[in-house]
Amino acid sequence: METGLEELTARLRQAVHERGWAPFHTPKNLAMALAGEAGELLAEFQWLTPEESRRVMDSPEKAEAVRSELADVFSYLLELADVLGVDLIEATNKKADIVARRYAEGYYGD
Amino acid sequence: METGLEELTARLRQAVHERGWAPFHTPKNLAMALAGEAGELLAEFQWLTPEESRRVMDSPEKAEAVRSELADVFSYLLELADVLGVDLIEATNKKADIVARRYAEGYYGD
Amino acid sequence: METGLEELTARLRQAVHERGWAPFHTPKNLAMALAGEAGELLAEFQWLTPEESRRVMDSPEKAEAVRSELADVFSYLLELADVLGVDLIEATNKKADIVARRYAEGYYGD
Amino acid sequence: METGLEELTARLRQAVHERGWAPFHTPKNLAMALAGEAGELLAEFQWLTPEESRRVMDSPEKAEAVRSELADVFSYLLELADVLGVDLIEATNKKADIVARRYAEGYYGD
Repeated sequence: METGLEELTARLRQAVHERGWAPFHTPKNLAMALAGEAGELLAEFQWLTPEESRRVMDSPEKAEAVRSELADVFSYLLELADVLGVDLIEATNKKADIVARRYAEGYYGD
Repeated sequence: METGLEELTARLRQAVHERGWAPFHTPKNLAMALAGEAGELLAEFQWLTPEESRRVMDSPEKAEAVRSELADVFSYLLELADVLGVDLIEATNKKADIVARRYAEGYYGD
Repeated sequence: METGLEELTARLRQAVHERGWAPFHTPKNLAMALAGEAGELLAEFQWLTPEESRRVMDSPEKAEAVRSELADVFSYLLELADVLGVDLIEATNKKADIVARRYAEGYYGD
Repeated sequence: METGLEELTARLRQAVHERGWAPFHTPKNLAMALAGEAGELLAEFQWLTPEESRRVMDSPEKAEAVRSELADVFSYLLELADVLGVDLIEATNKKADIVARRYAEGYYGD
């Protein structure tokens, strides 16, 4: 019955408030934290060949590290969208519509 | 019923395959694209004061730019998790458990 | 004689002051701008194979884009080091000493 | 008599070769490493107020961490420019000319 996404967002929001982190979690600071975590995720892949990167989950420790970094990125993304009042699913579907239209018109970037 | 998250992931996966982008979308390259989009999101906030960043959605154009960058980050995050076979909701709940435990033990970082 | 590095730093510093940008160029904001530019540099390479990335300067337009992004990263790095009073050459030589010592001791990361 | 910049670049180049890292240090991978280090630098500033960020060097440990991250960013930037054959000083002066021209024309971005 439930998406999990709303529950997770509510859980993260509550933890931030209980810990007194809310004054630090401005949109500016959350965008920085998100980019910092994206950098850590990047570091998991930087010396791998493309092929090795496809098999990264074969190693249990590496898989755990990657899952942990993906979780960090997602946590800050959810929190940032939450404080900004953005519905991530809706915004991403809308952007996918735009990319699809551009693609159909022969513009291939995104 | 439906979560929205799975539908969106399936939509993105299908678009990538239809456009022939799959060979380029290695985990390594998707991690790069995600970090690049996180950098663009960062750029929306870099010259703002903390207070201005809290009011960023008051301007319709700025709000649209922020939603578009959040969508780009989320698109690559969903696609990366998908090609790696990672359940983002599960991984993030698990990480939140770890952060909660660390916090309770007096370790405040994350 | 002259290094070029000090002249360039002085030039960037003067331009920032003349344009009234100094109040915005806090260390925090400069670190964000640097990371944002690093993300744009990343975008120049994200869909390239390792081999294609080695030949990126063969295309005049691509070479120009890469030079421009490297310059943006360097500009913010020089400015950030300048406002923090850090001697980049000295700090980097010192870090290279540390990495060399770690490497000699069998610790290969950095 | 010497710039320090060329010596430092030569030192980094030699260390990479001696350690057998050259095959991994493609432009693509170096751009990733640079962005990853820019993310770590970002993390030093993410929870600071603008004012706190201006005083970051007042704490000896924090100052050391910041110098270390600046050094990591600069190391990869120098190495990337070196493998691509780009003269960083020249490219950055050229970019500063372009920014100055745009500024004079009333276009304030960069």
